[in-house]
Amino acid sequence: MRIAVDAMGGDLGPTVIVSGALQGARAFGVPVALVGRRSELEPLLTPDQTAGADVVIVDAPDVVSMDEHPAQAARRKPNSSIAVALREVKERRADAMVSAGNSGAVMAAALLVLGRVPGIERPAIASFLPSTHGRTLVLDLGAVADPRPQHLVQFAQMGHVYAERVLGINAPTLGLLSNGEEPTKGNQLVQEVYPLLAQTSGIDFRGNVEGKDVMRGVVDIIVTDGFTGNVALKVAEGVAAFVGDALRSELTATVPRKLAALVLRPALRAVRARLDYSEVGGAPLLGVDGAVVIAHGRSDAKAITNAVGVAQRAAEQDLAGAIRAAARAEPATTGGDAGMAAGRGASD
Amino acid sequence: MRIAVDAMGGDLGPTVIVSGALQGARAFGVPVALVGRRSELEPLLTPDQTAGADVVIVDAPDVVSMDEHPAQAARRKPNSSIAVALREVKERRADAMVSAGNSGAVMAAALLVLGRVPGIERPAIASFLPSTHGRTLVLDLGAVADPRPQHLVQFAQMGHVYAERVLGINAPTLGLLSNGEEPTKGNQLVQEVYPLLAQTSGIDFRGNVEGKDVMRGVVDIIVTDGFTGNVALKVAEGVAAFVGDALRSELTATVPRKLAALVLRPALRAVRARLDYSEVGGAPLLGVDGAVVIAHGRSDAKAITNAVGVAQRAAEQDLAGAIRAAARAEPATTGGDAGMAAGRGASD
Repeated sequence: MRIAVDAMGGDLGPTVIVSGALQGARAFGVPVALVGRRSELEPLLTPDQTAGADVVIVDAPDVVSMDEHPAQAARRKPNSSIAVALREVKERRADAMVSAGNSGAVMAAALLVLGRVPGIERPAIASFLPSTHGRTLVLDLGAVADPRPQHLVQFAQMGHVYAERVLGINAPTLGLLSNGEEPTKGNQLVQEVYPLLAQTSGIDFRGNVEGKDVMRGVVDIIVTDGFTGNVALKVAEGVAAFVGDALRSELTATVPRKLAALVLRPALRAVRARLDYSEVGGAPLLGVDGAVVIAHGRSDAKAITNAVGVAQRAAEQDLAGAIRAAARAEPATTGGDAGMAAGRGASD
Repeated sequence: MRIAVDAMGGDLGPTVIVSGALQGARAFGVPVALVGRRSELEPLLTPDQTAGADVVIVDAPDVVSMDEHPAQAARRKPNSSIAVALREVKERRADAMVSAGNSGAVMAAALLVLGRVPGIERPAIASFLPSTHGRTLVLDLGAVADPRPQHLVQFAQMGHVYAERVLGINAPTLGLLSNGEEPTKGNQLVQEVYPLLAQTSGIDFRGNVEGKDVMRGVVDIIVTDGFTGNVALKVAEGVAAFVGDALRSELTATVPRKLAALVLRPALRAVRARLDYSEVGGAPLLGVDGAVVIAHGRSDAKAITNAVGVAQRAAEQDLAGAIRAAARAEPATTGGDAGMAAGRGASD
């Protein structure tokens, strides 16, 4: 077992990524391969930093920037840290790959290097939103902005496998994100997907759920198109940040409040932790033929550490193999085209 | 000036609606007409309740329930409290109408009774999400689940008029909700709407905004389709409720925390107030030929009071007239059909 980490990706630079990856190697006892420019990475691997971590460097001369066109970057930079890390997985020198880089480029390169799982026409980005019962798995969060109905059925199948295999949820329940609970509610896509999900075997479809249900944990998995999923995730992040800022300004407005806030610091920290997306670390890219974990572009070291843990579990549980088996059991309802407009729908 | 209030609508029943409406009449010094079953409403109008309020009852024998099919209810119940209240506006006995009832039915009935403003093909529900700079106006929040590109252009024009006229925002800025800031991001609808908005005169289009920008107040108005808008609003409500619950449970976990929380009660209340949707009260239905304000189905008395205030301002500023003028200045980009699938996209 080895996790390949794209050491050049992410807004905060290689120092933060390397620090998080090494901490992950120690915390989970898993070897890591840091992929990137050897000349930049070697100085970061002081004996102090690497103590207790099994780590190697895999040289990759090119870097994909955050604003590069995803599909073009994937095609024109076969020696980017993203592509080289993916080849480590493809050629079995690593079991999973983590990147906080340009997520569209990661997706496009993953499709080029690893390919899709047979029976899955579009990959999906899956991650968690906090809920009163723990966490709700939501997919797709931005891989496919305009999916067709059968793609959402495949998302549901992949979400089911991920929830059961990697998250250990027994018989996970699944809902379709809509603008009302009734089966007649929804935009055209949702109204076409609803009956398809109702007749898909191997999943436990509970009907439509609303935006407010995401945090209420009424189902374990919520399926949606990548556009709506991305907006929903970022609205949730935005509200959480807004509340955090509002609390900070209110709780420091007077001296008595500041003192009381001191007493409450652990309580407030606990609330913040429940909303902290770095606790999740990374979102698996489901449907590509290998374990790929996309971390937030703004990932700090803790987020990268947690992403290494997510990657390790995905590899251990042979996520891609399990998805292949599920897709084989329930073939896609229509053929569809096999092309992949990775660049357009992809998002950070 | 008189505001017609649908006294039968809302989850909490006539007692709450009447109480909120009377408080609105007192607070804003505006006469109200309570529309509903006279036999049920008269007992609620004790001298104590009506003191200082200019109030009449307008009898309406029928009631539309929350789960009734919107378009059918609008057609089959011409004497519902919703339809009668709208006729008060149509026939100039009232200047605006407020309902916390079945919002789809309100929309369908408003289209039947009042009709559309010439040049506006679809109405839109507009409301606020809290932001660091105050509030962001978001539309559509559920009137039209699958709008066509020119409908979003009309939403932008209506949002501009509402922000300028009713909210008093000078030269409001406007963004298009997307899954990334770059002009190339978005689903197909967003990518078609972007260039149309860029060439629409009379609005200040600032490009794409993301879900997290809603709360950051980067623009005054955010335009989106009714499906995504509804999901975004409800996710925001859900996160706010989640944080409220988490704070409550953490702050009462120990005795010292409880004591500290007592000191902070005003601070926490201030944060909650900033997230409280009852402070907003009601969302105007823009694009119908008259002032119609849709209140949340779960509206309490305070929300109804505030909705009466929103309705008063919409009527005072002649919102429908201003939208008519804006639509005339900038004709819709294509003709489109004039039919209205109110029932399908509508949502609470």
